[in-house]
Amino acid sequence: MASVVGDGAVALHEPRFRGNEWIYLKECLDSTFVSSVGKFVDRFEDDLAAFTGAKRAVAVVNGTAALHVSLLLAGVEAGDEVLLPALTFIATANAVAYCQATPHFVDSEERSLGMDAHALRDYLSAMTELRGGHCINRSTGRVIRAMVPMHTFGHPVDIEALLAVAHDFRMQLIEDAAESLGSTVGGRHTGTFGLMGTLSFNGNKTITTGGGGAILTNDLELGARAKHLTTTAKVPHRWSFVHDEVGYNYRLPNLNAALGCAQLEQLPGFLLEKRRLFDCYQSRFADVTGVRLVAEPAGCRSNYWLQTLLLDESLSGQRDAILTATNDSGLMTRPVWTLMHRMPMYSNTPKAPLPVAESLERRLINIPSSSGLVPVNS
Amino acid sequence: MASVVGDGAVALHEPRFRGNEWIYLKECLDSTFVSSVGKFVDRFEDDLAAFTGAKRAVAVVNGTAALHVSLLLAGVEAGDEVLLPALTFIATANAVAYCQATPHFVDSEERSLGMDAHALRDYLSAMTELRGGHCINRSTGRVIRAMVPMHTFGHPVDIEALLAVAHDFRMQLIEDAAESLGSTVGGRHTGTFGLMGTLSFNGNKTITTGGGGAILTNDLELGARAKHLTTTAKVPHRWSFVHDEVGYNYRLPNLNAALGCAQLEQLPGFLLEKRRLFDCYQSRFADVTGVRLVAEPAGCRSNYWLQTLLLDESLSGQRDAILTATNDSGLMTRPVWTLMHRMPMYSNTPKAPLPVAESLERRLINIPSSSGLVPVNS
Repeated sequence: MASVVGDGAVALHEPRFRGNEWIYLKECLDSTFVSSVGKFVDRFEDDLAAFTGAKRAVAVVNGTAALHVSLLLAGVEAGDEVLLPALTFIATANAVAYCQATPHFVDSEERSLGMDAHALRDYLSAMTELRGGHCINRSTGRVIRAMVPMHTFGHPVDIEALLAVAHDFRMQLIEDAAESLGSTVGGRHTGTFGLMGTLSFNGNKTITTGGGGAILTNDLELGARAKHLTTTAKVPHRWSFVHDEVGYNYRLPNLNAALGCAQLEQLPGFLLEKRRLFDCYQSRFADVTGVRLVAEPAGCRSNYWLQTLLLDESLSGQRDAILTATNDSGLMTRPVWTLMHRMPMYSNTPKAPLPVAESLERRLINIPSSSGLVPVNS
Repeated sequence: MASVVGDGAVALHEPRFRGNEWIYLKECLDSTFVSSVGKFVDRFEDDLAAFTGAKRAVAVVNGTAALHVSLLLAGVEAGDEVLLPALTFIATANAVAYCQATPHFVDSEERSLGMDAHALRDYLSAMTELRGGHCINRSTGRVIRAMVPMHTFGHPVDIEALLAVAHDFRMQLIEDAAESLGSTVGGRHTGTFGLMGTLSFNGNKTITTGGGGAILTNDLELGARAKHLTTTAKVPHRWSFVHDEVGYNYRLPNLNAALGCAQLEQLPGFLLEKRRLFDCYQSRFADVTGVRLVAEPAGCRSNYWLQTLLLDESLSGQRDAILTATNDSGLMTRPVWTLMHRMPMYSNTPKAPLPVAESLERRLINIPSSSGLVPVNS
């Protein structure tokens, strides 16, 4: 690892600000529009839609807020169940809880690290039934309203197969694309396949707005609903204050959008550099037995947000020793998230058998992944 | 109005960035710490605690988030009722709804524009009973768990009298101090009287972070709980990802905190200028019959966030004509918020008689209020 990224202390993922960040932030301050109105929010939304090919992008305060509102707009109600990978970040499960719904955890596949469409189809065939046009969990009696596959570390999940499952079992599909800005499937951007897709621009992501996120959709009516719901549901009027439903204060401030506009301009370069970093790691780890680097699935292009080592099962007992040694030497590494069903608040929720997720949990290690660690022009 | 603020177009409230905003934002970018960690978040929290005298301040993504988490920490549960002024911004009511609780609207007093402690005591005496140590609404059977008085436009509410009511009727008191940074009661800062207090740094507030808010408390244990709950409830560990309850992604990004640190340095000057603007308006409106400027209540110091005209009841029919004429001429004015019980989603919630709030709704007009409209050294 050090032979690729150098000997000094290296973070897991650092942002870089070498474009127009400075100019746009200054423009923001000079205009005094740092907050809820301002041209950078509109521009950032337009730029995101153009980059991803989504018909509409709605900028919000973070990826969790994007998930929460997408679930509400997908019709998730109190008492529903929502299918999620057990191998995901806590935000996906929490967003379901905010809707007073229950996460229902399912297994992942080793190829993409994401939800396993084939295992899911078998599981749903065995344990659900269609009633009144809805997919009913036979053991709980609850409606399974939606699934939220996630593109893990930027590697696209098998989205076409999952869409087919969602269709056949009459549920909505929301794509958690928090980690996959710049990742595509058959040339089409992740987050644009489902009813809605969600992005994150947290500081550790491929591009950052400080904190921020977005909702992508190809349904303009849903996009307008997302904008309304994330801006306190205020009815437009020259001066009066009427709000027509329980809305949320989830708008992205103009200041953060300004940073996002500058970052998005540099995204193609970041993606090239992250791919090059993968190539470098790949060639260095080729000779190391018992470990391989996770590569983009066939037919997909990954943004290689976080580079990931996968240990052989026989080496999984070494995971913590590797984490300790690398972190002690200043190379920041980390394991994958603890599986969701191990969290105390989600320990009694429904779940499928999780053999692959449990194996991946023992074997995955993320290693330093910032763009610019091995510049393309070096 | 124009004789005070000039003839050109004047906004209702604009932020000013004439301090270290620029230097701190640059420092933020140069350090790459724009997001969830960084020294400005800690400093902003410490500076807020020092300025307000609260033992702990927790910076969050906006005032709505601050209210939501404060209500949760005050023990508000699904099915509870929470007392709010009908005359408030939508965020106060929405935060209650996020807890699956029901807002219960009460009347205001003309003196402070905030909750009327005497009317409230009479109302609660008539319609509630104590049972099992809780205040029960006799007509709904639900627990009234808390009250959330708001310091309207920066004018301190009669907080001591409300604390006595809260004590006698066994409920928690959360202070919505979103508008009152810099306002004090008997020398003590608003937001530090209740179990918790909440601030907002939206772009229209006395100081801004783009979007942002804070929770104030004198209970260090509650402060620690607020920090935990607003940062995804992650259990500290060198690398592992365990979250021990359903938490929220409500942290204020370091970028926004940097702006806040610079703004807070200038707050004493802003407050002087806003007070001077009040004095100027006051002297100009002294001779105008049928209208008066709302002044700080006795024993209190208001930050004069939004300057407010109060029309005589006989002139209330002229309100919309005044709004039209001033806005047409470029002087931005606005009415007070539409009362909460008129919103479709809150039209069937419990409410007290609201004669004063309904009268104020017809008669209040906010007028241009930015600091710097009449500089102190002019």
